[in-house]
Amino acid sequence: MNEIVELKYFKTDETLHLESGKELKGIQVAYETYGKLNENRDNAILLLHALTGDAHAAGYHEGDSKPGWWDDMVGPGKAFDTNKYFVICSNMLGGCQGTTGPCSINPDTGKEYGISFPVITIEDAVKVQKKLIDYLRVNKLCVAGGSMGGMQALEWALKHNEMVSHVIIIASTPKLSAQGIAFNAIGRNAIISDPNWNNGNYYYGPKPEKGLAIARMVGHVTYLCEEAMDEKFERRFQDKDKPDFSFNIDFEVESYLAHQGKIFVDRFDANSYLYITKAVDYFDIAKTYGSLENAFKDTNAKYLIMSFTSDWLFPSAQSKELCSALMRNKKDVSFCEIKSPCGHDAFLLEYEAQTQMIKSFLIKETE
Amino acid sequence: MNEIVELKYFKTDETLHLESGKELKGIQVAYETYGKLNENRDNAILLLHALTGDAHAAGYHEGDSKPGWWDDMVGPGKAFDTNKYFVICSNMLGGCQGTTGPCSINPDTGKEYGISFPVITIEDAVKVQKKLIDYLRVNKLCVAGGSMGGMQALEWALKHNEMVSHVIIIASTPKLSAQGIAFNAIGRNAIISDPNWNNGNYYYGPKPEKGLAIARMVGHVTYLCEEAMDEKFERRFQDKDKPDFSFNIDFEVESYLAHQGKIFVDRFDANSYLYITKAVDYFDIAKTYGSLENAFKDTNAKYLIMSFTSDWLFPSAQSKELCSALMRNKKDVSFCEIKSPCGHDAFLLEYEAQTQMIKSFLIKETE
Repeated sequence: MNEIVELKYFKTDETLHLESGKELKGIQVAYETYGKLNENRDNAILLLHALTGDAHAAGYHEGDSKPGWWDDMVGPGKAFDTNKYFVICSNMLGGCQGTTGPCSINPDTGKEYGISFPVITIEDAVKVQKKLIDYLRVNKLCVAGGSMGGMQALEWALKHNEMVSHVIIIASTPKLSAQGIAFNAIGRNAIISDPNWNNGNYYYGPKPEKGLAIARMVGHVTYLCEEAMDEKFERRFQDKDKPDFSFNIDFEVESYLAHQGKIFVDRFDANSYLYITKAVDYFDIAKTYGSLENAFKDTNAKYLIMSFTSDWLFPSAQSKELCSALMRNKKDVSFCEIKSPCGHDAFLLEYEAQTQMIKSFLIKETE
Repeated sequence: MNEIVELKYFKTDETLHLESGKELKGIQVAYETYGKLNENRDNAILLLHALTGDAHAAGYHEGDSKPGWWDDMVGPGKAFDTNKYFVICSNMLGGCQGTTGPCSINPDTGKEYGISFPVITIEDAVKVQKKLIDYLRVNKLCVAGGSMGGMQALEWALKHNEMVSHVIIIASTPKLSAQGIAFNAIGRNAIISDPNWNNGNYYYGPKPEKGLAIARMVGHVTYLCEEAMDEKFERRFQDKDKPDFSFNIDFEVESYLAHQGKIFVDRFDANSYLYITKAVDYFDIAKTYGSLENAFKDTNAKYLIMSFTSDWLFPSAQSKELCSALMRNKKDVSFCEIKSPCGHDAFLLEYEAQTQMIKSFLIKETE
């Protein structure tokens, strides 16, 4: 989509009752929309972003040279066809890209929340998205997301059965593995161990850039896979043909990680990283509903589940478990394990295979 | 082995010429021995330790309640049978358990080396071990090691063809993958980012404990595997049945990692961690010898290579590559991929399967 799009804001004065028992007031949501809502207000697709994503899924902001994070998938004739659908994407609660989060100003104090911001869950994030969808007066919608976005799509389907007709869950899981929790915990540890983190109060001083960069590096290794990394970097040295025998960067892969860490700290808030990874850790449908099978007893939506062979962060087995629970409930579910060497990142890269699957899945309804 | 053993020291005044082109003088090596050297001085087995191991492979130090790190494998009737063999284990060059490393006193300055210690390689570590073996007047030996220990065993076989009769390489690789380099780089970044690291000068002040603990946590996740972690921790909360909605430790796996980090900083030197991971990153036989096949052209030793199905840090495929290069050279090689859910750590845990393989392998020669 080559269109210029702009970020919009929705504000609500309603009090949000959080899973933790706490309350949050004065919430702002940053969102974008692509395509047009039809007269019946039933052609909407809500895209849910992953850990560090934002509302800018497609198109270009004025002056930008790069489009939104899922531009390959959103636009006229694409997987999420803006000639047919009204596509919405909003920044998640707790985020740092326009939606209320720890770096927002607490209206009660006039200062940034920092870690006085309440701990939030995927359920809370969906409650906020629901307010946006109601504000847009959407009657029916398809929900779709990769990774953490898939968790939100699941929560949407289970909590808003009456509204959700289609659910697309990509490279996701009904619960994070112990290994996944471990990697998130290491990232949080790196942030909290940075003295610049200063108990979350760094908005007027130096930021915990080193800690956040390390968290991002850990994340990046889990988004790729051994095969993808060997393909991309092998054991090539960075701008030289032999080692330095020093603690400078020797290998290309080190340089890549350092670069990823560096560009991330410019665009992401360390406190948001703490809150959002925690929300991901907590998500566990089987625990909430007694069992995974029980969770899907009353769902009426149609499900499309996709996983990738080389994804070891949200492995195929977890998607299959989800699929199996739906099947045991005799629900309408399509599943595809896409062969890909791209690891978890495949949901952002393998757009052709995903497009085929999504188009066939959505067409069933509209034809 | 229930015997009391003690750490011994060997010192050499010879100058060590390092791969980097630098020199090192006044080297001390901490080592232990188990069993007796025979008259022909040809029944020795040199054990090579992994990343954070030490010379204390078996038996008990006076007053200790826990034995050495490979006690299940070393002793009368065990895999490395001390009734038959003279078993030696030394702390690696660059280490912090008695062998010269960055926390040793530089004789030229009277102060700890810190990062003025030269960057070392696996090749350099083996040069130092060779001096110890010569000092002990050993004529023939078997070399054996897991993980980084396997790299050293390989280097021994290739550099000292005339001395090495048997080579046992467990859960190891002829070169670390880009993913492995990435994890090491993250660990080093965490240490260097800790302000207490202070450019390596922390021996008289607070230590970079937070950074080193994070490095260890990253390491630990790579030593286990998804299956082992799910088996061990599932998604159980630590001493509670619901989340805290705080940034305290929620899950058992978080508590485990924090504990592993904490006990590690008490026994390991952060600078040593930098040096030894760098040595592991650099090791690459194919690069040194032109190709893996070429490396083994002249080797006369018998090889036993073992890998573990769930090891994703040093995956079986890398052991098979090694094995294949030996086979293409028509060398004597045995290979076993052991089915285990223990991940990379299996070489420290799956002692029954390893014992069977090692006993049969060594018996061929002695019978």
